[in-house]
Amino acid sequence: MVDITLSDGKVLQFEHAPSVFDVAQKISEGLARQAIAGKLNNEELIDLTTTITSDSTLQIITSKDTQAKDILNHTTAHVFAQAVMRLFSNAKITIGPPVENGFWYDVDCDDLQESDLPIIEEEMRKIIKEDLEIKREFKTIDEARDFFKDNEYKLEIIQGIVSHSLNEDEQLEGSVEHGKLQFYTQKEFSDLCKGPHLPRTGLIKAFKLEKMTKAYWRGNSENKQLNRVYGAAFWKKSEMDEYYAMLEEAKKRDHRIVGKKLKLFMTHEYAPGMAFFLPKGFTIYKELQYFVREQYRKHDFKEVMTPNMFNKKLWETSGHWEHYKDDMFIVNVDETQFSLKPMNCPSHCLIFKNEFKSYRDLPIRIADFGALHRNELSGALSGLIRVRKFCQDDAHIFCTQEQIVDEIDKALQLVDFIYKDTFKMEYEIELSTRPEGKLGSDGIWDLAEKALEDAIKRNGKEYQICAGDGAFYGPKIDFRIRDCLGRIHQTATIQLDFNLPERFDLTFENKEGHSERPVMIHRAVLGSVERFMAIMIEHFAGKFPLWLSPNQIKIIPVADRHQEYCNQIYDELFKRKFRVEKDYSHEGVGKKIAMARESEMPNYMLILGDEDIKNNTISVRTRKFVDGKNEEFTTTLEDFITKIEEERERREITY
Amino acid sequence: MVDITLSDGKVLQFEHAPSVFDVAQKISEGLARQAIAGKLNNEELIDLTTTITSDSTLQIITSKDTQAKDILNHTTAHVFAQAVMRLFSNAKITIGPPVENGFWYDVDCDDLQESDLPIIEEEMRKIIKEDLEIKREFKTIDEARDFFKDNEYKLEIIQGIVSHSLNEDEQLEGSVEHGKLQFYTQKEFSDLCKGPHLPRTGLIKAFKLEKMTKAYWRGNSENKQLNRVYGAAFWKKSEMDEYYAMLEEAKKRDHRIVGKKLKLFMTHEYAPGMAFFLPKGFTIYKELQYFVREQYRKHDFKEVMTPNMFNKKLWETSGHWEHYKDDMFIVNVDETQFSLKPMNCPSHCLIFKNEFKSYRDLPIRIADFGALHRNELSGALSGLIRVRKFCQDDAHIFCTQEQIVDEIDKALQLVDFIYKDTFKMEYEIELSTRPEGKLGSDGIWDLAEKALEDAIKRNGKEYQICAGDGAFYGPKIDFRIRDCLGRIHQTATIQLDFNLPERFDLTFENKEGHSERPVMIHRAVLGSVERFMAIMIEHFAGKFPLWLSPNQIKIIPVADRHQEYCNQIYDELFKRKFRVEKDYSHEGVGKKIAMARESEMPNYMLILGDEDIKNNTISVRTRKFVDGKNEEFTTTLEDFITKIEEERERREITY
Repeated sequence: MVDITLSDGKVLQFEHAPSVFDVAQKISEGLARQAIAGKLNNEELIDLTTTITSDSTLQIITSKDTQAKDILNHTTAHVFAQAVMRLFSNAKITIGPPVENGFWYDVDCDDLQESDLPIIEEEMRKIIKEDLEIKREFKTIDEARDFFKDNEYKLEIIQGIVSHSLNEDEQLEGSVEHGKLQFYTQKEFSDLCKGPHLPRTGLIKAFKLEKMTKAYWRGNSENKQLNRVYGAAFWKKSEMDEYYAMLEEAKKRDHRIVGKKLKLFMTHEYAPGMAFFLPKGFTIYKELQYFVREQYRKHDFKEVMTPNMFNKKLWETSGHWEHYKDDMFIVNVDETQFSLKPMNCPSHCLIFKNEFKSYRDLPIRIADFGALHRNELSGALSGLIRVRKFCQDDAHIFCTQEQIVDEIDKALQLVDFIYKDTFKMEYEIELSTRPEGKLGSDGIWDLAEKALEDAIKRNGKEYQICAGDGAFYGPKIDFRIRDCLGRIHQTATIQLDFNLPERFDLTFENKEGHSERPVMIHRAVLGSVERFMAIMIEHFAGKFPLWLSPNQIKIIPVADRHQEYCNQIYDELFKRKFRVEKDYSHEGVGKKIAMARESEMPNYMLILGDEDIKNNTISVRTRKFVDGKNEEFTTTLEDFITKIEEERERREITY
Repeated sequence: MVDITLSDGKVLQFEHAPSVFDVAQKISEGLARQAIAGKLNNEELIDLTTTITSDSTLQIITSKDTQAKDILNHTTAHVFAQAVMRLFSNAKITIGPPVENGFWYDVDCDDLQESDLPIIEEEMRKIIKEDLEIKREFKTIDEARDFFKDNEYKLEIIQGIVSHSLNEDEQLEGSVEHGKLQFYTQKEFSDLCKGPHLPRTGLIKAFKLEKMTKAYWRGNSENKQLNRVYGAAFWKKSEMDEYYAMLEEAKKRDHRIVGKKLKLFMTHEYAPGMAFFLPKGFTIYKELQYFVREQYRKHDFKEVMTPNMFNKKLWETSGHWEHYKDDMFIVNVDETQFSLKPMNCPSHCLIFKNEFKSYRDLPIRIADFGALHRNELSGALSGLIRVRKFCQDDAHIFCTQEQIVDEIDKALQLVDFIYKDTFKMEYEIELSTRPEGKLGSDGIWDLAEKALEDAIKRNGKEYQICAGDGAFYGPKIDFRIRDCLGRIHQTATIQLDFNLPERFDLTFENKEGHSERPVMIHRAVLGSVERFMAIMIEHFAGKFPLWLSPNQIKIIPVADRHQEYCNQIYDELFKRKFRVEKDYSHEGVGKKIAMARESEMPNYMLILGDEDIKNNTISVRTRKFVDGKNEEFTTTLEDFITKIEEERERREITY
C-alpha cells in the first residue's frame, strides 16, 4: 500500500506504486488531462510517468503552475537539439537549460548561422507534430560514454557528474541513480538529462527561437566558442503573441531610453552605477519624496537624516561585517575601517538607544531617505535598476509585541493607498514564514506570523503563504506589483525583526517599570526610489501624471506677435506653482509641437493665437488621443487652472 | 632725508629718521595721542618709539585698528608675567602669546593655584597704575643666556632662536637683530620678545584673567606640565563688560546645548563629525531646503542630484587629487581609488559637458544639495560647525563673459533677500582681487573684477577691497554676517572661476557658430546648511520663527474633560499643516507649560479650559515677554489661524 497525501491534506491509497498520472486520474479525469508533472514531498519535480514507491505527499503540476514553465522550456530545448541534430550532422550538442522567460542551448557547429533559425524552427514544428513520446531511461556510465564517444562535451559532463564538479546549469544535464545515468529519449534523439520533461512533444503549443550569440564552453574564455541559441515556449499561441508584443513595447519604454530622451538622468564612467539626476529627473524624484513625506505626516512617521558612513564597530554589532562585508564600500577613516551604509536600520537602532526609553515613546516610526551604497558587480550595473547608490522610503518601527498587529495593519493600508489608490496598480501579497535556523522562540514566531496574517485578513486581502521563506530574523510580507505591461516588480516589503533589537540590546521601560525589548519592523513602500522611478518611467512610458510630470505645460505662440499674451498666461501659471515652459524659438508651430511631444511629453500644450487674444481664451491640446489625433479644446485660463489644480491635488492618473 | 608715505598716499619728509610717534605727531596732535604702534611697508608692526631710517610707507595704528588688539593683549601678558614674578619668587615664566580674543601665558610654578588669579589681577592693576614705560632693548646671546641662567625654558627658547627651530607661538618670543636678541623691559621686569608692545603699561584700561589649565611645555606630553593662565584685555571697561556678557549669553545659546535640549540632533562615536538629525532638527533642515528651493524656482536655478563618490580620474581632472587629496576620504571601488566628493563643482562640470552645447542654453544655473565629506581632524570635530559631512546650498552658474555682471547682480540680490529681508541680519561685503600666481590674463581679470565691483555698486552696497586675496582661479565676493550677539560668520560667497572650465575643456557654440569657453560662478548663500543651522540655533537661542520652528503649537487642556475640545482644535491646525502637539499626560498644567517652555520652546501654547469651550475661543500664550510674563490673549480659532498662516507665509521673525 502506498499512501499519497495531496496538497489539500487529503490522502489517497494505492495498492501498487502509482505514477503521477495515476494519482491525477484518481482525483479526476480532467486533472489527468491537464497534468504535466508532479512535485514530490514538496521538493523534487518528477515526470508524469514516474512511479511513487513509498508514502509521499504529491502536488500535481499543470500548465497553470509557474513551475510548469521550466518543464515546457526544457522540453522545447530538447526538441531544438533534436532538430539541430537532424539538420546538421556535424553538430555537437552540449547543454541547454530552461532560464527565466525561456531557454538557451549551446551547440558546437561552425556551419550554424543565425539565418538558419527559421529552418530549425520548421524542423522543430515537425517534431512537435510527430507528437513523440518522451521516455526516461538509464545507461551505465560506460554505456553513456560509448553513446557520446564523438561528443567531447558530453564526455566532459559525464566526467563532471561522476566527480560531482558541475555548475548549476550543467547539473540539469546530469543525474545518477544506482550508478546509472538518466537519459531522456524521443524517437532517434537521446540526451543525458535530469528532467523532468513533458510526456510528449505534442504538448508544446507555441515557441520561438529568438537569437543566436557566442558563448565559451563552460564560460571559460580559453575554451572554444559555441553557438548559443535562445528561445522560449508557451502553452498557447496567444500567450506567445502577447509576450513578444509586450517585449516590443517594453523596449520602447525602456527607462534608459525614455530617461535620455526626456533628459531625466545621465550616467558617467567616473561614477558607475550612480545616476546623475538631471533637473527634470530630480523633479520627479522630489515629487515622489514629497508624496511619501505627506503620508509620513499623516501616519506619524518621524523623518531623520543619519550619517552616510560608520565605524566598522557598528557593522560588527549589526552583523553586517560578518555577513555583508563584501557588498559594502570600505573607507579608511582615522586609521580605522568605516563603511558606507548599505541600509539604514543599524543607525536607527542607535537613535532608538539614544533617544527613547519608555513605553510612552512607542510605537516610534523612524523614516530616512539616506543615500545607500552597495558594491554591486560593475558588469551588472545598468540605468536606475542595477545601481550602486540609491535611497529608499525606508522606515523602522519600534513597538511592543502587543502593537505589532496594529502597526502591520497600518503599514498594509499605506501600501494599499500608495499602489492601489494613487498609482492604480494591482499587487499580490506573499507571506513568508519561519525558515530553518530561525532566531527566536516558536512562541514569538507564532505570535509574529499570526500578527502578519491577521493584519492581512483584517484588510480583506488575498495572500499566498511561502512556507519557510522568511528571513532568519523574522517573518515578512512582500508585495508583487504589476505594471501596465503585466510585468511583476517586487517593491514594498514589511519585515519583522527580532534580531537587531537583540544585537543592539535595545530596551524600554514598560508600564510595570520593567525593562522590555522592543520589536522592530522594517518597511518600505516604493522600495528603492531609483528603481521605483525606473518602473514609473516604463509604466507611464514617460507620460507622467500631472503631479509627477516635469513638463506639465508648454506654451507655444502661433506667431511672434502673440508672445505678450503668452507671457501673461505663463506668469499666472508659474504663480500657481505649475511647471510651465514657453517656446519662443524661430521654428514653425508644427515643428515646435512635434518637438515638445517627442522630447518632453508635456501634459498640456497651449497654442495661443489671434482668436485666443480676441476672446481672452486659451487653446489647449492634451496627450489624449481622440479620433487619431490629440484632444483639443478651448477654455478660459481660470477654468483651466481650476481643472488642473484639482488634477494635481488629487494626483489623477491621465494618459 | 627720509620720505614717509602715508596710507592715503600723502608723503611726509623728515630731516632725521623719525619714530612712529614723530610721524603721527606731524600729522596731528590728536593722532599722536591715539597712536599705539606703526605698520611699516604694509608688512611689519613696529613700536611707537621705533625709528624709521629709510624711505617707507607707514600706517599709524590706533586702538581702532583690529591689529591693535594683539598688541594690547601681548602687553597685558607681559604685565601678567611681571605680576607673577613679583608674587611667586620661584616662578619660571615661559611663553605667552596673544591669541584670538585674548592671550595666555604658561608658567612653571607648582605653588600657583587658580584661586590665586584675583591676587595676580590685583598686582597687575598696580603695575598698570604705575604706568611703567615699556622699552625695547638688545642683549647679546651670551648676555641673554646669563640673564635667564636659572630658567631652562627661556634657555631652550634662546637655543631655538639661534637654530631657527621655534613654532609659531614661540616665534613671538624671539627676534634676532645684528646678532643680538630683542628684550622688552618695564621697570624690574625684562623678557625676550619680538614685540611690538604698547609704549606704557598705563594704556591697559581693562583686563581679566579668565581661567587656569594645564599644558605640557612645548605641547609635548613627555615634558613637564605647566600652568596656563588665560586672560583678555580691552580698551574700555564697557567693552569688557559687553564681551563677557556676550560670552555668557553665547554659552547659553551654544547650539550643542540647545540642540540637545530641543532634541534637534545627536552625535555618536561610530560616526565622528557626522550629525544624526533627529526629527525636529531635520524639520528645520527641510524648511531651510524648501525655502532655498523656493528661491531657486524664482531665480531659475535647476536642482540636480549627483553621485557621492567619483573615480580619482575626476579629481585628477579638477586638480583636487593634486591639491586636496589629504582632505578627501578614499574608497576602493573596482580596484581603483574613488573619493567621496568634498564639493559639487566637478560633477556639475560633467553635467555641463554632457548636456549643454549652445549659447541658447546659457546662463545655466545648476544647484545641488549633495552630501559633501571632508576629512577634518578628528580632534577638531564639534557639533554642527566642525563636521566631516555636510551639504551646501551650492550652485554653479555657467555663462558667457557678457553675462557675468548680470549673474553677479542677481546673486547679490538673492543674498540680500535671504539675509536682510528674510533673516533680518546685517552683513558686510569683501571683494578679493587678483593674487600673485593667478590663472588667466590681466584682461580677463580686469573684466571679472570690474564685473563684481559694478554689480556691488549697482546694488548700492558698501564694500571693502581685499587686494590680492582672490583665489588663483578668479576674484570673489565674501559676505560677513553679524548675528544678534554681534558675532561675525562668513557664510555666503560668490566666486568667479576661469580654471575648471579650462580643466574640463568646457565649451559652447556661440552665436557666430564658434566654440567658446564658458565662465563658471560658484555661489552659496547659506553655505554649509549644517553650519548655518548652528548659527540660526544660536542666533534665535532655540526660539525659531514660526516657519522654521519644529514646535509651532502646543495644546494643553486645563483638565481631562477638555481633551475633546483640544482634539477639535488640534485636528483643524493639523489640517492646515501646522506642527502641533498635545500634552495629555498626567502632570499639572503649570508643570506642562514649564516643561514645554524648557524643552520645546513652542511659538504658541494653547491652554484650553471651560471658558474656551463656553465661548468657542482659544486662550493663547506667546513667547513674547510683557510685564515680566508671557503675553496672553483670547481669540477665535479662525482668527488665530489667519494670523499664524500669514506669519508663516511671510516668514516673520518673532521673538
